[in-house]
Amino acid sequence: MFVSRPAVHPVEAPPLTDATENPPRVRMKDVQGMPGTVGGLALRFLQFMFALAALGVMASTSDFSSVSAFCLKWKILDLQLNYHVLCSYLVAATILQSLWSILLIFLDVYALLVKRSLQNPRVICLFAIGDGITSTLTFAAACASAGITVLIGNDLNICSKNNCGSFETATAMAFISWFAVSPSFLLNFWSLASR
Amino acid sequence: MFVSRPAVHPVEAPPLTDATENPPRVRMKDVQGMPGTVGGLALRFLQFMFALAALGVMASTSDFSSVSAFCLKWKILDLQLNYHVLCSYLVAATILQSLWSILLIFLDVYALLVKRSLQNPRVICLFAIGDGITSTLTFAAACASAGITVLIGNDLNICSKNNCGSFETATAMAFISWFAVSPSFLLNFWSLASR
Repeated sequence: MFVSRPAVHPVEAPPLTDATENPPRVRMKDVQGMPGTVGGLALRFLQFMFALAALGVMASTSDFSSVSAFCLKWKILDLQLNYHVLCSYLVAATILQSLWSILLIFLDVYALLVKRSLQNPRVICLFAIGDGITSTLTFAAACASAGITVLIGNDLNICSKNNCGSFETATAMAFISWFAVSPSFLLNFWSLASR
Repeated sequence: MFVSRPAVHPVEAPPLTDATENPPRVRMKDVQGMPGTVGGLALRFLQFMFALAALGVMASTSDFSSVSAFCLKWKILDLQLNYHVLCSYLVAATILQSLWSILLIFLDVYALLVKRSLQNPRVICLFAIGDGITSTLTFAAACASAGITVLIGNDLNICSKNNCGSFETATAMAFISWFAVSPSFLLNFWSLASR
């Protein structure tokens, strides 16, 4: 049994002010899916690929000279409806998602190559906020697009003019991208709370 | 200084199997907004009131004999578009949100009256899952409705037939309800992770 022997090796108490100003780096458990792990990298790849696929499908249906010109081609019944607002929003959300995911792919690859942990609380906080914002925007864009897809889904006369298939595919890709972002967000938030 | 005196009062080691089966109730910090606090009750009230308001606004524009009969009245340009699917979805999501929130209002009031803490990890886990599901559904319904609102927003000819104002108001109420659910979900998830 270990018995403490006081006053044999007196040790100075560490200065408290320094510890509160710079909290020590807490080493969190490396759960697969968190930043800096192979699972996390796989999730980021999924997010990026599907966001890019959504963008690619929408781009492939037109010459894509500019976003608004591209979207103005998608009109319902030749009315001046502001469909281009929603279309621009889906394009913008998938672009943002792609950029965010490719940035984190680079960070994850770097962390894996130099075997450095990304489990710093401030970095995780930044990742959680970024994931929360991009996932909310992607999900909102996917839902709004799905709403329109359901609305015009049954009418073949509208769909022949508007490439409904492409729009539906892009919406599905955006949803899958959101499905891949959600675990990243939840894991980051979890590890932020459990530090 | 307290010095341990071994073997004076030998105490049996608690049986390990019991402890792993029934983990001890961990007392978590009572942050305002968590279940069983006044802040949490206020959040629940906001969720419930705005989900009910969204439902009420949609119900007030028709005789509301049945959801599908109500929603079939909302057609765009007299085409057989399946607008009623989306409309039913918004109604269903707000009904689910209202039911979930009123249930938690009763639980919160009970906890406050008998001064009992709801900070049991299993209960919090249940709340977090329920909040996650209802908030996702409400947000999806609000986004899909907002998509349609933006789509038909500028066309006065369509709006005069379809009570756009009421639909926009219901959408806004659903969004505000989602804004009130999100803090509940994040706080529950946080306290679940930090136990």
